[in-house]
Amino acid sequence: MNNIETKSVNAIRVLAADAIEKAKSGHPGMPLGSAAIAYELWAHEMKHNPKNPKWPNRDRFILSAGHGSALEYALLHLFGYGITVDDLKEFRQFGSVTPGHPEYRHTVGVEATTGPLGAGVSMAVGMAMAEAHLAATFNKEGFPVVDHYTFTLCGDGCLMEGISSEAFSLAGTLKLGKLIVLYDSNRITIEGNTDIAFREDVAKRMEAFGFQTLEVKDGNDLAEIKAAIDAAKADLSRPSFITVHTEIGYGCPAKQGKASAHGEPLGEENILEMKKNFEWPSTEPFFVPEEVYQNYAGIIADLGKAEEEWNALFKAYCETYPEMAKKWETYFDRSKLAGLIDVDSFWAVPEKDEATRASSGAAINRLKDLVPNLFGGSADLAPSNKTNMKEAGDFSAEDYLGRNIHFGIRELAMTAIGNGMMLHGGLSAYVATFFVFSDYTKPMARLSALMGMPLTYVFTHDSIGVGEDGPTHEPIEQAAMFRALPNFHLFRPADANETNLAWYAALTSESTPTALALTRQNLPQITTGRGALKGAYVLKDAAKATPDAILIATGSEVSLALQAREELLKDGIDARVVSMPCMDLFEEQDEAYKESVLPKAVRKRVAVEALSGFGWEKYVGLDGKTVCMKGFGASAPYSKLFPHFGFTVENVVKTVKELF
Amino acid sequence: MNNIETKSVNAIRVLAADAIEKAKSGHPGMPLGSAAIAYELWAHEMKHNPKNPKWPNRDRFILSAGHGSALEYALLHLFGYGITVDDLKEFRQFGSVTPGHPEYRHTVGVEATTGPLGAGVSMAVGMAMAEAHLAATFNKEGFPVVDHYTFTLCGDGCLMEGISSEAFSLAGTLKLGKLIVLYDSNRITIEGNTDIAFREDVAKRMEAFGFQTLEVKDGNDLAEIKAAIDAAKADLSRPSFITVHTEIGYGCPAKQGKASAHGEPLGEENILEMKKNFEWPSTEPFFVPEEVYQNYAGIIADLGKAEEEWNALFKAYCETYPEMAKKWETYFDRSKLAGLIDVDSFWAVPEKDEATRASSGAAINRLKDLVPNLFGGSADLAPSNKTNMKEAGDFSAEDYLGRNIHFGIRELAMTAIGNGMMLHGGLSAYVATFFVFSDYTKPMARLSALMGMPLTYVFTHDSIGVGEDGPTHEPIEQAAMFRALPNFHLFRPADANETNLAWYAALTSESTPTALALTRQNLPQITTGRGALKGAYVLKDAAKATPDAILIATGSEVSLALQAREELLKDGIDARVVSMPCMDLFEEQDEAYKESVLPKAVRKRVAVEALSGFGWEKYVGLDGKTVCMKGFGASAPYSKLFPHFGFTVENVVKTVKELF
Repeated sequence: MNNIETKSVNAIRVLAADAIEKAKSGHPGMPLGSAAIAYELWAHEMKHNPKNPKWPNRDRFILSAGHGSALEYALLHLFGYGITVDDLKEFRQFGSVTPGHPEYRHTVGVEATTGPLGAGVSMAVGMAMAEAHLAATFNKEGFPVVDHYTFTLCGDGCLMEGISSEAFSLAGTLKLGKLIVLYDSNRITIEGNTDIAFREDVAKRMEAFGFQTLEVKDGNDLAEIKAAIDAAKADLSRPSFITVHTEIGYGCPAKQGKASAHGEPLGEENILEMKKNFEWPSTEPFFVPEEVYQNYAGIIADLGKAEEEWNALFKAYCETYPEMAKKWETYFDRSKLAGLIDVDSFWAVPEKDEATRASSGAAINRLKDLVPNLFGGSADLAPSNKTNMKEAGDFSAEDYLGRNIHFGIRELAMTAIGNGMMLHGGLSAYVATFFVFSDYTKPMARLSALMGMPLTYVFTHDSIGVGEDGPTHEPIEQAAMFRALPNFHLFRPADANETNLAWYAALTSESTPTALALTRQNLPQITTGRGALKGAYVLKDAAKATPDAILIATGSEVSLALQAREELLKDGIDARVVSMPCMDLFEEQDEAYKESVLPKAVRKRVAVEALSGFGWEKYVGLDGKTVCMKGFGASAPYSKLFPHFGFTVENVVKTVKELF
Repeated sequence: MNNIETKSVNAIRVLAADAIEKAKSGHPGMPLGSAAIAYELWAHEMKHNPKNPKWPNRDRFILSAGHGSALEYALLHLFGYGITVDDLKEFRQFGSVTPGHPEYRHTVGVEATTGPLGAGVSMAVGMAMAEAHLAATFNKEGFPVVDHYTFTLCGDGCLMEGISSEAFSLAGTLKLGKLIVLYDSNRITIEGNTDIAFREDVAKRMEAFGFQTLEVKDGNDLAEIKAAIDAAKADLSRPSFITVHTEIGYGCPAKQGKASAHGEPLGEENILEMKKNFEWPSTEPFFVPEEVYQNYAGIIADLGKAEEEWNALFKAYCETYPEMAKKWETYFDRSKLAGLIDVDSFWAVPEKDEATRASSGAAINRLKDLVPNLFGGSADLAPSNKTNMKEAGDFSAEDYLGRNIHFGIRELAMTAIGNGMMLHGGLSAYVATFFVFSDYTKPMARLSALMGMPLTYVFTHDSIGVGEDGPTHEPIEQAAMFRALPNFHLFRPADANETNLAWYAALTSESTPTALALTRQNLPQITTGRGALKGAYVLKDAAKATPDAILIATGSEVSLALQAREELLKDGIDARVVSMPCMDLFEEQDEAYKESVLPKAVRKRVAVEALSGFGWEKYVGLDGKTVCMKGFGASAPYSKLFPHFGFTVENVVKTVKELF
């Protein structure tokens, strides 16, 4: 490579190393090792515009090896995204825009929050799926308005994590030709050489998944990197995987190739040695030569042209196809969804008993028409989850227009992919599995919450109501798991009305993911009104101004609470029944509303939920009781299990009476 | 195959189909499709003794496709494990020994609880690792006392789940030549043909992982199955993967090859057609011809011989190597551990401040000598988790004697492997990662709890004390997640003494898994005595008989509570400080003890924990308060984060005073 390019690559290394050194914390190994890959990609291969990081048709870049955040911040600085040298100096400090790992919504130009390994590459698969679907939806002859690549840079860790196998197997099946994975192969992890735990033939595995596999022998050779990326771009029939052989900590003589380069500052002396090695003109921290900034300035100016061309193309497209312009707005402006959904036809409820999973299935099939960008599916449980959108087609390699996604039995990747689709923009995505298998989704559900991605989760078979499949399939602690997770709304609706409201809340949420926990078994229709949107509400009040007792229940146990109330009345106990479909939303209400539903003066409170009681003491306190699961479930018809575990009118009544 | 063998295979099919039909619930497709594989394996290839299902040197068999439980129960019946026809008639009924999915400890002959897909194959990897380590430890020239295969039968679902890629990549790296995976390849999942989500070349992927790959073209050809298993057994240099081409629902004309065969009863008419197709001599449900039972009786008699021979070998071994006989007892009798650990040297504590992860590291290195079968490691975070046993060697393909395991960046498979090692018997296993990444372990941690496997989890970096790595690396809701999980003990120790007690509790637990949540940052030494073994105890009492207030804290916040108590005393508030390192264990104490620690009369209570407050209301009630995290953390030095989020003496004091 020519001198200025060498310097431009080394500037990335210098800035990353200096930022980490100043913070006395961070991961220099990866930024130093993969600086050339990143430079070549951002400077010459990726279509992006630093002046408008939200340009819809930009190529996406996800740093899956999120610990290499200093690399991304150095790039965002040098490529003019607005990250300043002062920001780099505040790396990993309180309130800075340069936190320890890249955070979506926090730092301009960061496409996704990464750090948990394997997450980034899987979100990239979701972005590529979104691109494929939107391209199929919007593009017209001569108007490729959706036409971009998704790049992701990962290391050994991302490839060891099972989530990446799940995501890549699906990417291969779907022939996502615009997905390009760059593998920073430095053969070093925290515990040492990858030989200790990772001797597999990675490229062969990727081939088995259906990827084109390419190799860059010298991770510092820009021409070789360029050739590989060009070959990857050229093959649109399948995703591409480029193994780039690098050296961790490249350029720092004392650290190069060593595990110690991974996760600690290089040390002042070693940085001086590195700068000497680079023939860097100054040892001053954060110094970048003017000619380097000039080189980047030239690149930035060129980068803007792609968007200019696209803007012209898009203008002509909107003029030629005004109906598509309108459709575009519907897809890309989530704030429009409330208006689309809040129509009489959506709020339909049956008169007959119905499982809430069936109510949800019916809601999905009404939403299918109201919300054209609704796009989702299940981890191979669609017939059980009732998530299929009828006559909406299957999303497949042969038909990217299809709206039903077959994720395969891959709950974790499904969730990351869902996040990726939401991050991409333009879609209202949902994912589905059994509630008990929400366990598999947890690491990526956490990322939904952390990123503020309003992905929708359909979790059916929400209690011991699962019945015969037994304890491996019966959720117990999963509701508590999600309720403890910040910025996550878990709904457990009592009937079709509350299920509709849960869907409405999910799709109109701007920055909070929502899960629906739904029954396998039939439930009666017992609620009306929109109280569920406040998380909890008085479903049936006591006759007295101050109730003798309060019964709080969710989902399948709400009708039980109503029946218990009737029985208690016969014995002169005048109880209120509170339906609490979403504890998380109730917590967000003001104190006055909370007091109106659960007056502090009433201490005789019983919570009823066929799940772990953990967390319910928040509402029943030290003086109340819970009718909840105390251990795992069992295998038997659910009609046997509910009475066995105490979910009967008699037991609820008895429990309330014990408080008197 | 000859006539009696055909009938013996079909007997499996008939019993499975009839059991499912009677239950009106279950999964017939897999039992019908893979009956011949199972028969050949159990009858002619697997070394096991139905008369002694716990024979230590038996070959292990794990049905990873746990929904095919009816297959396993039919086998356990026909092979004389004591499952009766009446048991089969009670399939999936309350209290039966034939639940919906195979459950360890519940049904004789079931080696592991399966159902969550991918779990079984990964536990099988753990069993094969245990065998390799124990063989290296115990075998002497001419005395192969540990020498068995581990077989696992899986379907497409297990191979789609990422956990299996994690486990198989490690198995290949470790060259586990005695691991044999049988892949029931029927190309059908719940949503349809596997082409919709799973077009990869599975065998090629397994080759990439380092497996010998074999193929059986006709899954009903016993000779072909035998030849493949023999070839698998013969190659001891690497694990083997046998793709067996089968047809889901084989033998039932109306269901064969269809997704509908997977998860619902075949239907009475279809069963009659199947029996006709088999030329079955009776249509009576559960009928098995006498000649079939006789064939099995002959097989069973032969199977006993292997154990007889081993018993003789083991007797001679014990006579020749009496010290090894003693060692064997130490390894295989967990009840001996309490005595081994409870010695003065183990209870050492430093005087200086120390991170509890460091205290744990020191404990591990004392336990290394006290508990010779301690065996474990980290998901590539050993230097951070402090889990390395010094001079105990690395477990690798080249040295199965090593006791430190490099799991690679594979938290989920690591946990399943840990379960598998514990299920195998003979080892005290531990696994480790950052607490925030316990999210990845959750599905398999649940199986630890459900199976009652006392696996030990080391989770370091247990709060915002993580600091600069930021919110992706800072656990918030993970403690609540584990506290809500039944039969799981989460310890968050306050210092080295409580850390030692947590390790003691973990290794002496018979049927409950234990996790240790440990700090990255230094903590002062503030506790003495064994109160932690009761989960919570009065660390510093009020002077008054009835305290004015109670401060409850865990881990790094206990010293904060102690300091707040001192400040409050100055203002005339006489508070008790309760250290609650293990909420779960405290819940198991009797009411009198609980009352002695947390008297009902004292309502001014404040809980302090730098994690989600979800669940703490159980102890502070409606009248108390929590000083806990209300959202995600941030990236900054931890010394900035603790004050920012309110973890200061001042704020705790202020919060207590608000109650007055």
